[in-house]
Amino acid sequence: MPSLTGSDAPAPPTIADVRDAARRLEGIARRTPLLEFDAINTIAGVRVLLKCEMFQQIGAFKIRGAHNRIAKLSEAERSRGVVAYSSGNHAQAVAMTARDFGVPATIIMPSDAPPVKIARTKGYGAEVVLYDRNGEDREAIAARIVERTGAAVVPPYDHPDIIAGQGTVGLEIADQCAEMGVSPDAVVVPCSGGGLVAGCAIALADAAPGAKVYAAEPEGFDDTVRSLASGRRERNAPGPNSICDALLVPTPGAITFGINRRLLAGGMAVSDAETMEAMAVAYESARVVVEPGGATGLAAVLQRRLPAKTDTVCVVLSGGNADTDVFVRAISRA
Amino acid sequence: MPSLTGSDAPAPPTIADVRDAARRLEGIARRTPLLEFDAINTIAGVRVLLKCEMFQQIGAFKIRGAHNRIAKLSEAERSRGVVAYSSGNHAQAVAMTARDFGVPATIIMPSDAPPVKIARTKGYGAEVVLYDRNGEDREAIAARIVERTGAAVVPPYDHPDIIAGQGTVGLEIADQCAEMGVSPDAVVVPCSGGGLVAGCAIALADAAPGAKVYAAEPEGFDDTVRSLASGRRERNAPGPNSICDALLVPTPGAITFGINRRLLAGGMAVSDAETMEAMAVAYESARVVVEPGGATGLAAVLQRRLPAKTDTVCVVLSGGNADTDVFVRAISRA
Repeated sequence: MPSLTGSDAPAPPTIADVRDAARRLEGIARRTPLLEFDAINTIAGVRVLLKCEMFQQIGAFKIRGAHNRIAKLSEAERSRGVVAYSSGNHAQAVAMTARDFGVPATIIMPSDAPPVKIARTKGYGAEVVLYDRNGEDREAIAARIVERTGAAVVPPYDHPDIIAGQGTVGLEIADQCAEMGVSPDAVVVPCSGGGLVAGCAIALADAAPGAKVYAAEPEGFDDTVRSLASGRRERNAPGPNSICDALLVPTPGAITFGINRRLLAGGMAVSDAETMEAMAVAYESARVVVEPGGATGLAAVLQRRLPAKTDTVCVVLSGGNADTDVFVRAISRA
Repeated sequence: MPSLTGSDAPAPPTIADVRDAARRLEGIARRTPLLEFDAINTIAGVRVLLKCEMFQQIGAFKIRGAHNRIAKLSEAERSRGVVAYSSGNHAQAVAMTARDFGVPATIIMPSDAPPVKIARTKGYGAEVVLYDRNGEDREAIAARIVERTGAAVVPPYDHPDIIAGQGTVGLEIADQCAEMGVSPDAVVVPCSGGGLVAGCAIALADAAPGAKVYAAEPEGFDDTVRSLASGRRERNAPGPNSICDALLVPTPGAITFGINRRLLAGGMAVSDAETMEAMAVAYESARVVVEPGGATGLAAVLQRRLPAKTDTVCVVLSGGNADTDVFVRAISRA
């Protein structure tokens, strides 16, 4: 079993693993639409194609990695249940997938996770264990459960099967762009532990090698941006908070950073105000609901943080499980 | 030129006209996605496929009919400009299409139309003339402009080219269902003057003849529902209002009702509260923004107004240009 902390990192997935995941996800994950709006192109000053992962069944891309991991467990492994730690979207994805496989799931969630995400996770039949994000170690809690039950861990990002599953977003972007006759110069992906952007980078390096891949993080949680600059896994200073509840990890994953260091063109950090503005633009001009953590990539693009020579950019809108009070604040700005 | 009031109605469009419109709209109107969500299926008690017309460029299906009509005008006709009357979505569609053809547009809009729709119509460069919906006759105002300028009228629904354009929604539904291997029993369409539902009914009678087509109207503006029952064009009593600003016409069109009487399986009226509930469900479970007039079909389906033997229903979400105060009220309910 891979270490829970990922310190003795197994080999990263290959493009073949991502393509295997795509076959495994047929009929499970949707091929979400890639949408374009003039009003957004105008604000961004480039052509913007929005990859709408909020239309996955649980409202976020996480179903891809969770299903790929759980589907690859043996019957014997699955019979002992699964355990996961997550701020919410991965929680729902693991809970739903476990339900579909008839497997018991325990999900460790921060007590300040959006109530809608906690409620929906319980709605899929999972047992939810709450912890204090500032005082307790979720991986240690998971380890105790594994010791007691023998459950398989479904980590949120630092696992080859998770990364390969998330990478199917990148494969779809490449396919959809090819169908539209478009060659994207850049793909911008919201980033927390780095599983989605790492998987997309593996997929795009093969399927759309002209596209540079960027990670977009919230200010205060820009560990991947700083790690890309320094070449080693940096940690976020304790203390800051962000509205991007889905993106609050302390440091990049070991496997994910190994991939991202090699394949990403760079990263950018956006402020909460810029993220709220992106949510409002997505509401007004694309008529979609994006949660804060799903909007950092769009925020970076709307703020024109990409290199000046970019013509066409794909932006992953990675989730839509916004708490309504936050969403209302975002769309009600003057 | 057809009469502005449609009393000497020209022949209705045929399936060939709808297919011609589809070819004319290639590269102009999007093939909007058909999305499905477990949570919505559960509420409705049937399988629900959502045809997401809020993702058209102006945020509503209206671009289909407006483009088809203006594209079919001669150069000489277009040079004298176009005039339209609309509560907002048709206004934006005509304004945008006129801009794209380099044609001057005058749009007559009710003074109580949502400010966002008035602002966006002006944003496309159209001249906007406001009128009092309860005291003035928008068709008479249009007639005076036509007399003065020779402009071509682009009516909101009662014209064969408009109906054929809107009917491309029905063609896409049939194609997308076939690709998914689904045979819908029912298609439910928001209805005002009846152009969208009439066009869809023509398309579906040919391309998916097993699907029964229903019109969904707001209470107080259920002229099509009552006309289908009585067999003649009924008028709404003056006085009532509805949050469905896009659906407030006094009586069905002559051409549209001729089609709808022949092809529709029925209609249903929904209350404003039911429409607000449908907007909230679309926000929470589908992560899309639907305006009130775009949500009447979903409201009818969520309220289980369809015949009990229905298994699979396609619902047209016809537009997403909600005023933010109304949208916030809808999604903030307890």
